[in-house]
Amino acid sequence: MTTKQLIEQIRIKKSFLCVGLDVDLNKIPKHLLDLEDPIFEFNKAIIDATHDLAVAYKPNIAFFEAYGLKGWVALQKTIEYINNSYPEIFTIADAKRGDIGNTSSMYAKAFFEDLNFDSITVAPYMGKDSVEPFLAFENKHTILLALTSNAGAFDFQTLTVNGAPLYQQVLETSKSWTNSENLMYVVGATKAEYFTEIRKIIPDSFILVPGVGAQGGSLSEVCKYGMNSKVGLLINSSRAIIYASNGLDFVEKARAEALNMQLEMEAILKQA
Amino acid sequence: MTTKQLIEQIRIKKSFLCVGLDVDLNKIPKHLLDLEDPIFEFNKAIIDATHDLAVAYKPNIAFFEAYGLKGWVALQKTIEYINNSYPEIFTIADAKRGDIGNTSSMYAKAFFEDLNFDSITVAPYMGKDSVEPFLAFENKHTILLALTSNAGAFDFQTLTVNGAPLYQQVLETSKSWTNSENLMYVVGATKAEYFTEIRKIIPDSFILVPGVGAQGGSLSEVCKYGMNSKVGLLINSSRAIIYASNGLDFVEKARAEALNMQLEMEAILKQA
Repeated sequence: MTTKQLIEQIRIKKSFLCVGLDVDLNKIPKHLLDLEDPIFEFNKAIIDATHDLAVAYKPNIAFFEAYGLKGWVALQKTIEYINNSYPEIFTIADAKRGDIGNTSSMYAKAFFEDLNFDSITVAPYMGKDSVEPFLAFENKHTILLALTSNAGAFDFQTLTVNGAPLYQQVLETSKSWTNSENLMYVVGATKAEYFTEIRKIIPDSFILVPGVGAQGGSLSEVCKYGMNSKVGLLINSSRAIIYASNGLDFVEKARAEALNMQLEMEAILKQA
Repeated sequence: MTTKQLIEQIRIKKSFLCVGLDVDLNKIPKHLLDLEDPIFEFNKAIIDATHDLAVAYKPNIAFFEAYGLKGWVALQKTIEYINNSYPEIFTIADAKRGDIGNTSSMYAKAFFEDLNFDSITVAPYMGKDSVEPFLAFENKHTILLALTSNAGAFDFQTLTVNGAPLYQQVLETSKSWTNSENLMYVVGATKAEYFTEIRKIIPDSFILVPGVGAQGGSLSEVCKYGMNSKVGLLINSSRAIIYASNGLDFVEKARAEALNMQLEMEAILKQA
């Protein structure tokens, strides 16, 4: 999917919501556990109930790998289901990969070609030659970790290098990489006050923002400092939506949560 | 496996060789491609031919994920085969994972419990709460990326923070994390001259060293500056061993390469 198509979808749906699919068999409704593939069935139900309110889905690959083979089957079925049923949806493999060149190429092939995701999250620690193999794919997007939403972000990401925090150096340096127009960035919602500085470095890029809701980030604060003229934000919500209920009404409750967020986003877009 | 057991194996085998299993179907002998599971059959043949010369095997997870479901089946069969046939071998999942706490817990469960690897490589960018979930597993080892062997290592890892390079800060900070005795580190062989400073910060830890051979690192240089009284090094070789030949003689050629390295290591151990 092109960035232009993603922006069109945001305008059409009046939403920049991304739903995180972090499927934990201990948290999903008990009645699904009797089905042959409860992970996929849960995802399918959530997607069917929210696809008109969200522009993106983000399966967290760890949660699938934790279930071994059946997890991989569920991941394949989930991404195929989205691509076939809702091709207008932007898909994100939340994998946080990053390795030396030929290994990154293997990961890129796995997620962009075989699974046909639109994008993947990638860690920056190993530098240019670990990220550029992902950037080489046309109309695919590499979402680089910049400033994450967890407490550990302060261990290294905010340390001062060359007079500025490391995460700003990551943003700055990454702009010089080949095909950097295919870059997006992860910035946690718990760091809303950092968005002003970040937008000075990457005014036009899309930013994937986890940490609204359960982790305590504020949607309106993030939008105030992080939105650009093309919106430029994808706000992720995982647990608050998909685990809104673990009863028979989980689909309705998930939709209600997603609708709340979409309406809040619609109001923000109207103001902007 | 405990660190003590690993050190015992190094003494018994007079080797601190780790064989990297980066299986690429385009590079393995053609006659294996007709078998039902060529990835596993290749690994099995390599392992059978080298298990007495190596103390560790390191499947690179990217190369398995690139083949989707059949890749995961091959990974499961490979780790099971090592654990059942050669339980004295130290196993490394080269996965370079790292995510926020609950997600890292899922990865830790997948690799330490379900697949039963002894260790996993982890990226440090997201800090303490992304790594500690891995450290919580007893007799399992978390191998933190410090200074990698690729060119991109100079993009961020060697930038100065608090008066020293970032990778030294990573080493220093990681020592304060809960269960830090379960940490090992990745330092590339192409950076032999850095080992002196590194050993000042982590005198006792094991270091996994990729980059000998194909990437140009020198075994003797690495040992000169990086070895400690308990050896403290695992030297990885992937392509130089597993792709020594792609003909019918690939097993013999792989063994010959591994034997060369083991003999070189034996000589170094005798000197030390």
